[in-house]
Amino acid sequence: MKKRLKALVFDAYGTLFDVHTVIATCEQVFPGQGATLSRAWRAKQLEYTWLRSLMGRYEDFWQVTEAALVFAARNLGLRCDAAARQRLMEAYLHLEPFPEVKPALEELSDYTLAILSNGSPRMLKAAVESAGLARTFKHVISVDEVKIFKPSPRVYELAPRKTDVPAHDIGFVSSNFWDVAGAKSFGFWTCWVNRGQAPEEELGFVADLTVSTLHGLAEALTRKSEKAGQERAG
Amino acid sequence: MKKRLKALVFDAYGTLFDVHTVIATCEQVFPGQGATLSRAWRAKQLEYTWLRSLMGRYEDFWQVTEAALVFAARNLGLRCDAAARQRLMEAYLHLEPFPEVKPALEELSDYTLAILSNGSPRMLKAAVESAGLARTFKHVISVDEVKIFKPSPRVYELAPRKTDVPAHDIGFVSSNFWDVAGAKSFGFWTCWVNRGQAPEEELGFVADLTVSTLHGLAEALTRKSEKAGQERAG
Repeated sequence: MKKRLKALVFDAYGTLFDVHTVIATCEQVFPGQGATLSRAWRAKQLEYTWLRSLMGRYEDFWQVTEAALVFAARNLGLRCDAAARQRLMEAYLHLEPFPEVKPALEELSDYTLAILSNGSPRMLKAAVESAGLARTFKHVISVDEVKIFKPSPRVYELAPRKTDVPAHDIGFVSSNFWDVAGAKSFGFWTCWVNRGQAPEEELGFVADLTVSTLHGLAEALTRKSEKAGQERAG
Repeated sequence: MKKRLKALVFDAYGTLFDVHTVIATCEQVFPGQGATLSRAWRAKQLEYTWLRSLMGRYEDFWQVTEAALVFAARNLGLRCDAAARQRLMEAYLHLEPFPEVKPALEELSDYTLAILSNGSPRMLKAAVESAGLARTFKHVISVDEVKIFKPSPRVYELAPRKTDVPAHDIGFVSSNFWDVAGAKSFGFWTCWVNRGQAPEEELGFVADLTVSTLHGLAEALTRKSEKAGQERAG
């Protein structure tokens, strides 16, 4: 039995923050095309983070996200002028947490809690404040410090460095399977928050725990902690 | 005016080799789902090359392509057993060149011609032979030598090293815009073969020349060469 974790490090977008606001804004700006645009935008956003990282041409997540929007709209034949672009981009600054996030994190308050995200420092600050989570996290860590995106091991290495907790005592939590794979490859214990019942990816790594919401994580870690306590006592 | 290029280095799949055979095989194995599966498969194949490269977990293109097929089929709810998988994978070994490839390359025979591809050495050998192009290329270069995929600069660096032609005398030709961006970022003159009239990606780099088939490249380089000759003479 693995010993108790000391820190929990969370991905931000899709894991803590519901990007529904972004989808809804897409629908307001382009009625009938909101779902298609937001899906294409998100896919291109990730693709550009990977490509720029591999090319060694980092730009921050705000810039990459805007470039992805420009391409996605153009590719769909949608006219996305400066005003529409600004409105869509600003949706990223006003996100709600998923409904279970606050109560689940309260149950986990014995752990050092941190965020490790692709988001730029400004985007993360706005999202954390907008979601009312500013006091919950001891560390809000952006990839901007190492100028490369997930799943580079240089990103995950920020977590032990910033929290001062060794990698083998860190649990990493993400709704993105590829992010879990990257974190597992680096050496963290991992939890996949599979909100959409997606199949596992074929990347050679699987999560140590799979849950459908953060409540599942809180429950599992409480059980785990009790069991470890019993084993230590026994 | 840039002086005459000495070597032309081509991407393989989609640039020289028509992956139509792969799409047709998908349709034979899963009638009515061929286009959907082959699109999802190709997208996942690229995604896995980027993710594994960033994670520092290279596996060769054959393995990545098969993993992508397994995921794509599962995600679409298609039952892809070992026999179906083998049949679909083998389609990659028997590809046709696009119809203009041979005559266009003949017009370019004054240049040192090479392939630089994500494909594994075995896949590239089979595709080049199957397409009747074995004598056309002086060098067939696989990323396998550096154990990372495009668009890492370590891949593009293979071209000057293997051809013994300096990077600034190399023209790189690809149907993938992101591959062109990676090659341009590295320092090559670039040509985008935009067969499908796709919009330009927003990656901070554009091609030096955009054509719809390789004939356009041959024409442009002939004109360019004549013009450079005149300028040298003048």
